[in-house]
Formats: sequence, structure tokens, C-alpha cells
Amino acid sequence: MRVAPFIATPMEFRTVWWEDETVRLIDQRKLPHTVEVVNCTDLSSVAYAIRSMQVRGAPAIGCTAAYGMALVARQSAAHSVEDLLEELRQAKAILDAQRPTAVNLAWATSRMLRRAETAASEGTTAIKTVLLAEAEAIFAEDLAMCHAIGEHGAPLIPPRGHVLTHCNAGGLATAGYGTALAPIRTAFAQGRPIHVFVDETRPFLQGARLTAWELLQAGIPQTLITDNMAAFMMQRGHIDCIIVGADRIAANGDVANKIGTYGLAVLARYHQIPFYVAAPYSTIDLATASGADIPIEERDPAEVTHIAGIAIAPHGVPAAHPAFDVTPNELVTAIITERGVLHPPFTVALRQLASQP
Amino acid sequence: MRVAPFIATPMEFRTVWWEDETVRLIDQRKLPHTVEVVNCTDLSSVAYAIRSMQVRGAPAIGCTAAYGMALVARQSAAHSVEDLLEELRQAKAILDAQRPTAVNLAWATSRMLRRAETAASEGTTAIKTVLLAEAEAIFAEDLAMCHAIGEHGAPLIPPRGHVLTHCNAGGLATAGYGTALAPIRTAFAQGRPIHVFVDETRPFLQGARLTAWELLQAGIPQTLITDNMAAFMMQRGHIDCIIVGADRIAANGDVANKIGTYGLAVLARYHQIPFYVAAPYSTIDLATASGADIPIEERDPAEVTHIAGIAIAPHGVPAAHPAFDVTPNELVTAIITERGVLHPPFTVALRQLASQP
Repeated sequence: MRVAPFIATPMEFRTVWWEDETVRLIDQRKLPHTVEVVNCTDLSSVAYAIRSMQVRGAPAIGCTAAYGMALVARQSAAHSVEDLLEELRQAKAILDAQRPTAVNLAWATSRMLRRAETAASEGTTAIKTVLLAEAEAIFAEDLAMCHAIGEHGAPLIPPRGHVLTHCNAGGLATAGYGTALAPIRTAFAQGRPIHVFVDETRPFLQGARLTAWELLQAGIPQTLITDNMAAFMMQRGHIDCIIVGADRIAANGDVANKIGTYGLAVLARYHQIPFYVAAPYSTIDLATASGADIPIEERDPAEVTHIAGIAIAPHGVPAAHPAFDVTPNELVTAIITERGVLHPPFTVALRQLASQP
Repeated sequence: MRVAPFIATPMEFRTVWWEDETVRLIDQRKLPHTVEVVNCTDLSSVAYAIRSMQVRGAPAIGCTAAYGMALVARQSAAHSVEDLLEELRQAKAILDAQRPTAVNLAWATSRMLRRAETAASEGTTAIKTVLLAEAEAIFAEDLAMCHAIGEHGAPLIPPRGHVLTHCNAGGLATAGYGTALAPIRTAFAQGRPIHVFVDETRPFLQGARLTAWELLQAGIPQTLITDNMAAFMMQRGHIDCIIVGADRIAANGDVANKIGTYGLAVLARYHQIPFYVAAPYSTIDLATASGADIPIEERDPAEVTHIAGIAIAPHGVPAAHPAFDVTPNELVTAIITERGVLHPPFTVALRQLASQP
């Protein structure tokens, strides 16, 4: 096991990083049993890492794509700036196509392309330098964003500290530290009582594999449950609040997130439990009016009929695999961003946030 | 693959049956990949089939135990009726001990023993004959119960016929045909449009393994989903009604059933979708006032952290495993029994049903 992803203590780790002219990332498909590092040495291996979910989670995908753009620039043999920019445009198109729902992917590649364009007059060598710096900035901003979400979100956790979370909006979904897990980490670091109920999150089991692993690393008390046990835990009064991440937030506050999130929001409303969404500002897409305009990625049904390569259903059974769902704004108690906590009506709050300097 | 379990067409199968002086049953642990028939040629192999869950589902366990009692009688070398009855009493004690919570098990063995006692004056040979006939009667009554539930329940399925079900309350849980699956089978046999959304039902995956297999055998259109996709399907308008089975129904209509059932009932209420419980009259327990009096079995957390023997969570993560939950009566639209359909208020309807001849 390589220790490269770990910063100082096992409590904090990096999900993706730049090292030796290579994009390196923790292979999240191998967790929780092995911490294996993937070395992406070209565009196609970066694209594959995103598509195959070696790396997942919108901010982590954004960081990876940004490093991927820097990699393309630095490996380029282009003699002219225009040829280099054309290579970067093609790389952006390839990277953007890997995961259609995550807004951070196109956001990061657009930012990288713009940065290259603004450096055009400085020549190809300068572009190679500034693009790596820009990717490192995206990484650093992402980590700072997570810590700010933690600071803003921690006070929302009720005194007893029983929090339910879904999927993995943790350090592994970001540069490190996490979004939905950030208020939990911060509250725990403050010495407050915390107990996390972790939805295993079928079909990919990001909760069981990734969130459980992260919490174990951090020493935060947890109980793993199957997704269908969440309602029972709420009925029994075991859950004080729910915190989930987001893949995209529409202008009206509708939230696209991992399949199963919407059901939790309905259950939270029925049990009068606060339902919080923790996500970076970059997840907010004001160009998308409502959740109805968010495309839902349909993934391979074989991911439902098989677990770890083993068929769990009879051969030939049709299965559905919507990878995300949309939670309507009226079920969201508040949205926790690095710029502060937003309350309904979200159409107003999100517009105000966007108009801030 | 033996075809013996199939009656006439693959659409109908027997879960357990008597053939060649042997108790035969489908090994449900091998489904859905192999249809393997277990031949129980003595008491200990019948006991093992029940204990090891080669056969599961309360009515199916009852039928198996009844055939097991007939087997003991027919293999007996006892010269006196009293010796034979003593052998049967010992067999009953052994069988009852295999799954102490399954009420149908002791119910079936008690009925078999009483039948033997009432035939005592007719001699050992007669007892051997009447006990096989009694076991066949228990089997036939169970099958008739299922078909009656089908007849009563089918008209409740809305015209488009999109039904969501959870776990396996199908033919494999009974002599054949099923309880929750009975209205679906009957409507399908009537030529009505039917499409079943099958919850995979973690942690044991009875939906993915057993219900999907049954529906595939019967040629009934289906879509397998993970449990956390149910809310999405309801939100999108794909579900017209929900039909689930029950492990116990309290006097006020509260329903204990497989973990995840309660969450579906809450989601059904939010989406204004009818939520039906299909169960034999024997499931109704008037001695239990409400769901609060029903103990919830806590099973081994390793069943949550492992799938098919493979660890899906990091070693050492605590997990919860409540095997059942309780759905309060106010979330149940109607209860479908072999004696008819019960509507709220269930306290009155259940009392009336019990007072019928």
C-alpha cells in the first residue's frame, strides 16, 4: 500500500494529485480492501479513470479533469499556440463526454481552457506552466471549499449528533475532506458527539466501501445500514438530521444527487427531520432552471444485477439503473456551501449568492 | 436441471412436494442460478432443509414439516400405535426447534400429530396413510389460499398494471403461486397488462434472487431495481400500486414485514399510490394489539457487511441488521386475504373477519 495519498495523518488524504508529470489518484473501485494508486500518464487513462469510476464525486472529477488538461498541455508536441489550444479543446470534449450529469467536469475543463486562452500571447511553454498552476489552484480551492463547508455546516448538526448520509460526498469525492462529510468532520474535530448512519448505497456501495472507510480512518463512530433500513432508523428516532452531497443544484434549488437521495428527502419530511445538502458553489447551475432540465444518467443494468462481478439475479432479468435522482427544492431544509448556508426560497437565495463578488 | 417442481407449465411450480416416498424441495439457496432439487429421505434431512433455509417462507416451511411428519410415520418400524405416536411426538419436537419463530411450523406439526391421534384406533398402517393425506391436504389448502388471494387481489391492480413488490412473498414462500405475487399472477393469467418492479431487497436479495426468478419462469414482465430506486420510480409515475407480503399482522392492522417495507409505505403515501398487504388469514395475530408489541429480529451484522461471502465494507465497521420493520395501519390501503379484501378501520375489519365461520 502506497502512503502517498495521506497528508500528515490518516485522517486527511488526497483523492487525486499531480506527481512526476503524472495524474495520480486513489482507485476507488479497489476500496475499502486496498488503497491502490492509479498513475494516469495520458489523456485516455484520465478519461478512463473518470468513466470507469476509478475516481468519482463531482469535485474530485473536476480536479482530475483539470490535472488531465494540464497533462495534455505538458505532453503536447504542438509548435503553435493555436495547435495547442485545439488539442486542449479536443481533450475537453473527450473529458466532458465521460460523465454527463456532473457539472464540475465541464466547469473545470472550461476554466482550464479559458486559462490557456488568456495565456495565449505568452506562448506554448508558458501555457504548460500556467495550466499546471491552474489545476493546482483548483485542487487547493477545492480543499479550502470543503473546510469552509465544514465550518458553515457543523453548527446545523443537532446536539446529539446522529447524522444519516448517503453515498460518498466525502474526502474521496473531493480533493479531500469532503462536502457532506465536512460538517461531520468539523463537528467531530470540535469534540462534539457525532454518530454517522451510513447508507450502503446500492448499486455501487459507495457508502459501505468509501464513506465507511473514510469514517474508520478518521475514527468517527458509525453504523452501516442497507438503504432500506433508513426509514426504520428514522421511525425509531435514531436520526437527528440528514446531510447529503449534490451533483448539480438547479436555479430553483432542485438537487440532483445519487439515486436514493430523493427517497431519503421524502422520508425526512415525513419524520420531520432536517434534510441538508452540502455542496460547493460550483455545483450550482443557474443556467438550469429546475430539476426537470437535469439529464439523469442511465448506467449499465449489469451494475444492478451483479455485485463484485457475481450475478445476484437470474440471467436475462431486465434491470433499471438510473444513477441519480432529483430532489425537489421543497424537501430541502438548507443548502450548505463554502460561502454560507442558504435557506428557502432557494430561487432568491441562489440568485443572491451568485450576485455576490 | 430436474423439471419435477414444475406443474404442467413453467408458470407454476411446487416449492415442496411428495414423490417416491421422499420429501422433495427446490433448494432456494441455489437460486437463481441453479434449480436444484433436494431429496429428503429421512427426518434429519427435512430438519436440515428447514434450518439451513433450503426452504424458507412460513407457509412453505409448514408444508415441508407436514411432509416430514408423514415421512417419519411411513418409515417407522413401530409395531404399536403408541410407539408410532411417540416417534411422531419426538419428530415434532425436532422439527419445531429448527426455526422457533416461524408460527406455521409448529402449527403444521401440531395438526399432523392430532390427525395421527384421531386415527389411533385404526392402527399403524392407517395412520401412515392418513398422515400422507393430511400433508397433501395442508399443501392443497396452502395452494388454494394463494389462488384465493390472487382472485381477491387482482381487481385491485390498476388498469396499466405497474406493480412494485418487495422481498419474496411468492410461490417460493408458499406451496406455490405466492401471496403478494398471487394478484400479479392472476391478473397476468387473465391477460391483463402487468409489469412488476422488483426491489432487490438487501441484505438477503430475496427480490433479485427469488422474485425475479419466479417472474422469469412465469413470463411476467419485470424490471429489477435496487431498493433505493423505488422512490425515483414513484416520482416518475412508473408505479401504480405496491403489493407486499406480511410476517405478522397485529389486531389494529399494523404490519410486520421484511425490512424496507415501512419506507415503501411512507413513499407510497407521499406519492398517493395504493399500498396493499397480501397475506393468509393465519398471519393475522389478534393476540398482538399493535405493531409496538411485535419483536423485531436483529440478525448478524455480517449479513450486511458481506454479500455472497465477500466483504463489501472495510473490516471492523459496525453495522445494524433489523430483519423486519413495522408499517403502521394508517399507511396500509387494504389487506388482501384468502377470505376477502379488508379496508380500514382494520381493527373492526380484522375482528369481523375472525368472527366469520
